[in-house]
Amino acid sequence: MGSEDKIISWLCRLTVITAFFFIGFIIGEFFYFYRSMYIIICNFTRLPHLAGSQQNLDLAKQIRAEWMEFGLDSVELVPYDMLLSYPNKTNPNYISIVDHLGNEIFNTSLAEPVPEGYEDVTDIVPPYSAFSAKGQPEDELVYVNYGRTEDFFKLERELGINCSGKIVIARYGKIFRGNKVKNAMLAGAKGIVLFSDPADYCADGVEPYPDGWNLPGGGAQRGNVLNLNGAGDPLTPGYPAKEYTYRSSLEDAVGLPKIPVHPIGYHDAVHLLQHMGGPLPPDNWKGALNISYRIGPGFMDGLNQNKVRMNIHTNNQVTRIYNVIGWIRGAVEPDRYVILGGHRDAWVFGGIDPVSGAAVVHESVRAAGKLMKKGWRPRRTLIFASWDAEEFGLLGSTEWAEDHARVLQERAVAYINADSAIEGMYTLRVDCTPSLHTLVYDITKKVSSPEDGEEGMTLYQSWHKRDNSTERDAPWISKLGSGSDFEAYFIRLGIASGRARYTKNRKTEHYSSYPVYHSVYETYEIVERFYDPSFRRLEAVARVRGGLIFSLADSPVLPLDCVEYAMSLTKYANSIYQLALKHPAAMEQYSVSFDSLFSAVENFTVAARDFHQRLDQLDTSNALAVRMVNDQLMYLERAFTDPLGLPGRPFYRHIIFAPSSHNKYAGESFPGIYDALFDIENAVDPQKAWDEVKRQISIAAFTVNTAAETLRPVVS
Amino acid sequence: MGSEDKIISWLCRLTVITAFFFIGFIIGEFFYFYRSMYIIICNFTRLPHLAGSQQNLDLAKQIRAEWMEFGLDSVELVPYDMLLSYPNKTNPNYISIVDHLGNEIFNTSLAEPVPEGYEDVTDIVPPYSAFSAKGQPEDELVYVNYGRTEDFFKLERELGINCSGKIVIARYGKIFRGNKVKNAMLAGAKGIVLFSDPADYCADGVEPYPDGWNLPGGGAQRGNVLNLNGAGDPLTPGYPAKEYTYRSSLEDAVGLPKIPVHPIGYHDAVHLLQHMGGPLPPDNWKGALNISYRIGPGFMDGLNQNKVRMNIHTNNQVTRIYNVIGWIRGAVEPDRYVILGGHRDAWVFGGIDPVSGAAVVHESVRAAGKLMKKGWRPRRTLIFASWDAEEFGLLGSTEWAEDHARVLQERAVAYINADSAIEGMYTLRVDCTPSLHTLVYDITKKVSSPEDGEEGMTLYQSWHKRDNSTERDAPWISKLGSGSDFEAYFIRLGIASGRARYTKNRKTEHYSSYPVYHSVYETYEIVERFYDPSFRRLEAVARVRGGLIFSLADSPVLPLDCVEYAMSLTKYANSIYQLALKHPAAMEQYSVSFDSLFSAVENFTVAARDFHQRLDQLDTSNALAVRMVNDQLMYLERAFTDPLGLPGRPFYRHIIFAPSSHNKYAGESFPGIYDALFDIENAVDPQKAWDEVKRQISIAAFTVNTAAETLRPVVS
Repeated sequence: MGSEDKIISWLCRLTVITAFFFIGFIIGEFFYFYRSMYIIICNFTRLPHLAGSQQNLDLAKQIRAEWMEFGLDSVELVPYDMLLSYPNKTNPNYISIVDHLGNEIFNTSLAEPVPEGYEDVTDIVPPYSAFSAKGQPEDELVYVNYGRTEDFFKLERELGINCSGKIVIARYGKIFRGNKVKNAMLAGAKGIVLFSDPADYCADGVEPYPDGWNLPGGGAQRGNVLNLNGAGDPLTPGYPAKEYTYRSSLEDAVGLPKIPVHPIGYHDAVHLLQHMGGPLPPDNWKGALNISYRIGPGFMDGLNQNKVRMNIHTNNQVTRIYNVIGWIRGAVEPDRYVILGGHRDAWVFGGIDPVSGAAVVHESVRAAGKLMKKGWRPRRTLIFASWDAEEFGLLGSTEWAEDHARVLQERAVAYINADSAIEGMYTLRVDCTPSLHTLVYDITKKVSSPEDGEEGMTLYQSWHKRDNSTERDAPWISKLGSGSDFEAYFIRLGIASGRARYTKNRKTEHYSSYPVYHSVYETYEIVERFYDPSFRRLEAVARVRGGLIFSLADSPVLPLDCVEYAMSLTKYANSIYQLALKHPAAMEQYSVSFDSLFSAVENFTVAARDFHQRLDQLDTSNALAVRMVNDQLMYLERAFTDPLGLPGRPFYRHIIFAPSSHNKYAGESFPGIYDALFDIENAVDPQKAWDEVKRQISIAAFTVNTAAETLRPVVS
Repeated sequence: MGSEDKIISWLCRLTVITAFFFIGFIIGEFFYFYRSMYIIICNFTRLPHLAGSQQNLDLAKQIRAEWMEFGLDSVELVPYDMLLSYPNKTNPNYISIVDHLGNEIFNTSLAEPVPEGYEDVTDIVPPYSAFSAKGQPEDELVYVNYGRTEDFFKLERELGINCSGKIVIARYGKIFRGNKVKNAMLAGAKGIVLFSDPADYCADGVEPYPDGWNLPGGGAQRGNVLNLNGAGDPLTPGYPAKEYTYRSSLEDAVGLPKIPVHPIGYHDAVHLLQHMGGPLPPDNWKGALNISYRIGPGFMDGLNQNKVRMNIHTNNQVTRIYNVIGWIRGAVEPDRYVILGGHRDAWVFGGIDPVSGAAVVHESVRAAGKLMKKGWRPRRTLIFASWDAEEFGLLGSTEWAEDHARVLQERAVAYINADSAIEGMYTLRVDCTPSLHTLVYDITKKVSSPEDGEEGMTLYQSWHKRDNSTERDAPWISKLGSGSDFEAYFIRLGIASGRARYTKNRKTEHYSSYPVYHSVYETYEIVERFYDPSFRRLEAVARVRGGLIFSLADSPVLPLDCVEYAMSLTKYANSIYQLALKHPAAMEQYSVSFDSLFSAVENFTVAARDFHQRLDQLDTSNALAVRMVNDQLMYLERAFTDPLGLPGRPFYRHIIFAPSSHNKYAGESFPGIYDALFDIENAVDPQKAWDEVKRQISIAAFTVNTAAETLRPVVS
């Protein structure tokens, strides 16, 4: 069979070479058509697309029809019936100042001023905190800065202020709003008001929308205030919210706040904050409202004992939502899935969030369809997802992950997220699993810089110039946190994941997120006039996201880099060790050692290096041999998950990465150890607390060792 | 490439045909050498091989050396440091009758009379209950029959007897001893004595050993009394007990009884039982001791207020144990594992348990080695395991499963268990996952009946004749329960598993297990003289076990039958529905419906049928296509597991099968629903109880639906 072998081997090598060439072609040339994205954004932002609304179902149907037309093999609407939350249309939410007679002497706005051109749009949901408890608590107000754990520590431990039974007011920013609400509940507050301070939602020298892209004083940030910890639909944790699924009672639901919550803009906030009593705040708590500051408790207006009253009538209700799922069957390995997913639902128009991202998905489908019409079909199966109800707690994507957990765990190679593609005008931002670092760099080297005056420069060069890593000579890439739809895929199921977007200068622009985030001012115009007039930044982001999925779907050997994972693990182990070393006496007293973790990281490093050395010798003409190493690469991320989950967070199963317990948006490495160490100097039972640290080190060491095992030769 | 294609296709088909032929050859001819098993059994039973002992380490080293000599690619000793339990050598355990002055007027034996020929053997551990709490409780005695849940219900609800604060005495049999201990603790007992009643440990018309195979009156049953629910080492639940692993304190250990426990023989039991007070027992509680029966409480000897005192000094201690793991690298798919595992540790000589099974593993390795010397190598990797510390709670096998959970979940095709190969002299007994039914039948059709007078008859025919299924015209196959080393592989990891052994006539022989079970009388001689003088029964069992692993390792398409799974699911769904129907009013009142479960089973049935139809059309010359369907077959069992586990039993993750909550030995189907329905007529909060039934139906329906999904075409 010698001569046949040679022919086959040659043909297989040719296929490999062709595939690599083809990926270059796709990234370099094909996405020219991404310039049509502005049409998509314009079209998708005409109406509000709140999850559960008729408009959002209509948009789902439109997307299904267009994806079919583009040429996908199949497209389906996948419904789930989940707990959503809406304001009561006849009984609006607001906050009042009430005097000692009970008169409401000031009420916050019931809606944001609607931007020009959208005056006739109906069904704009007013600013609200989704899943807020109903209620009309009335009491003195305490200002809690950002409502972070450390802010409440300062209040309780340094300023001696007890929030129990009070209403608290926190400014938006720094952390996920759900964590602020959780902290307020833990402090015993009976309600929480959230406001956007100009210090956090206005950039220097920029005008409020529509003259610039800053948040106007009448704008406010919508958003859910859940603490789901990855559970998905609050009534069906762990299982998809199908028609037949058992639903828990509201009392047993996961993550619902027990207190009223409401968001306001800074024009309204001034009224609540400007005459408070209590001590002076620390300087860095003052924000940018031009008022005299006190923290509370107490709301004193001259001699009057004014108080604050929250009037919250928001309803939770089980509502049908729709994901749109499109498939391209893989030609060679149809049972290997590469997923590009982003949400469709928006708080209002969603110009940035999510439409700038949804347009990337839509254009990727169009590009894939065009390629297919030329005879192309990816080696692996491509899945495109338009998620619903992301704004309500990543619900659509999480339910689909729950629904298909078994096949995804068996078959999913990677998940690339496509939420907002642009949140700033400075450079690229990438958060991804370490094994994708190299591919991200390779792809950005094939994409042109979208910036004026950088003709001939690659995106990599442009990005590198603006945001160099502190650790090596390459652009900065972050850990994945949460706050978007990759969560269930990465943190729960252990599927290699990444996200890319255009961002602000994180070293000089200190406002939170982007100023108009989740307000009515997220329009098509804000993108077209300010963020990306040429749409070349969006095109660059699209090329990165598209390049990732096409490379992952088409490369004969999966372009995942285990050595990068080893480097990251080394960094994280050092970092958590340094954190523990802040307690040298306790480390000594309780015999706490990180040796097992460092040893495991070393084992992983050796296994990763050896794996890639063997990969260099791989006979790529041997289909089964290629499949075997690809399985090892695919399952590496899975190996970092533990079915037992993190303490108290059963759906966060990744032992290396989890959303911070103090800020869902941020990623924490070795989260089990981190949480065990948190505030340990104040532990009631230090022996028990340090035992938990030791247990978590042991779990982390075992997990890293077991991941190393998956990379070793498959037979002992 | 047309002509090359044809050549390759032809060669692949030839390989398939050859492989099938070869499997027939292996089963039919090669195991001729199994007759050498009697040498192995004789050799392995010379000394006691208690887990953690030097003798058992020596045997591990001997096995490693012999497996290497037989020709395995590699063999390793894999140590773990786990909590074991031993009697205190200087302070023996016994039970006393004490009079009102505190004098011990009767003490139970400190050891079993040693059988002839073994008088000089040292290190025979006396009968004890491993992991018993220490203590010397003294009180009145209550007889609790078998100590089953229903026995305690009868005592408390019908006879009005409260065991709280008493010492209870239960006869062995019917259920796992750990369940008896748990029930006693739940009833508030402060100690439990376990005894072997002749009704349960003597067969009619059979002499006690050494004249026959019945249990002598001085014999007693050792055994662990843990309630681990699959946790493995009590100090390291969920993680392997390696040197660096964090160990919980004894107070936080999983499954340790909180009360003293001790086993005695029936000669001793008579003294404790014959003068009790209290009411008369129900007739079927009386056993076969020729005494006048009372239940207690009270221990009245004439006018004296005699009591019972337990004297238990057993120590828990972290001890090193050793698994022996041998590998044969697969020729085509080295990353697919077929495992044959059985334990090596014995309470004493282990003539039946485990050596009759360990000999099968040993001989299978020898057979495989001989084949390899003739140039054979299996398509998939074969792993042979000699587990340690099975008797202490399936510890060696569970720790190895925990250690390698990730690679096993990715790569393990099947696990075949090899505990005791013979527990009776009547016919074959098989417990296995439904997908193995067909393969078991096929293999037994290729094995000869070992019974005298059945020359020319197959094992299938002999078995069929003796033990026909009540449901169809085929031999009876049971569900897997627990009580042996397959537990972690099947119930936790979802690996298709099975076991086979020779057994008694379950319709006419009503003694429990086999009479000398876990006593010093489990010698080589009892096998050679009574159970299998020709060793042909053991040979038949060996051919079944060996046939299973060689078929699973060598068949190009995995010989797993999804349609059989569908049939079993239908049966289990009907069965659990019938159980619920015993409460028609409550079903109505709480709107309990099984529709979703029946619909899911129907979905699974259709998917399974369609899958096998597609399999018939499979192009077996396409290596990747074969791999894909094999992956679907391999992962089917995995799909039935849920990382959240069963309520209160996080390591029992299989939704279709679990050890009964009331008897670890027995398998329960749809255990989540079963447990939710259990004793529901006495629920304190019926609404909550029936809600839990509904939740469990929903989980079962989802799990079956999701398993169906894994069998459908891999692209939507």
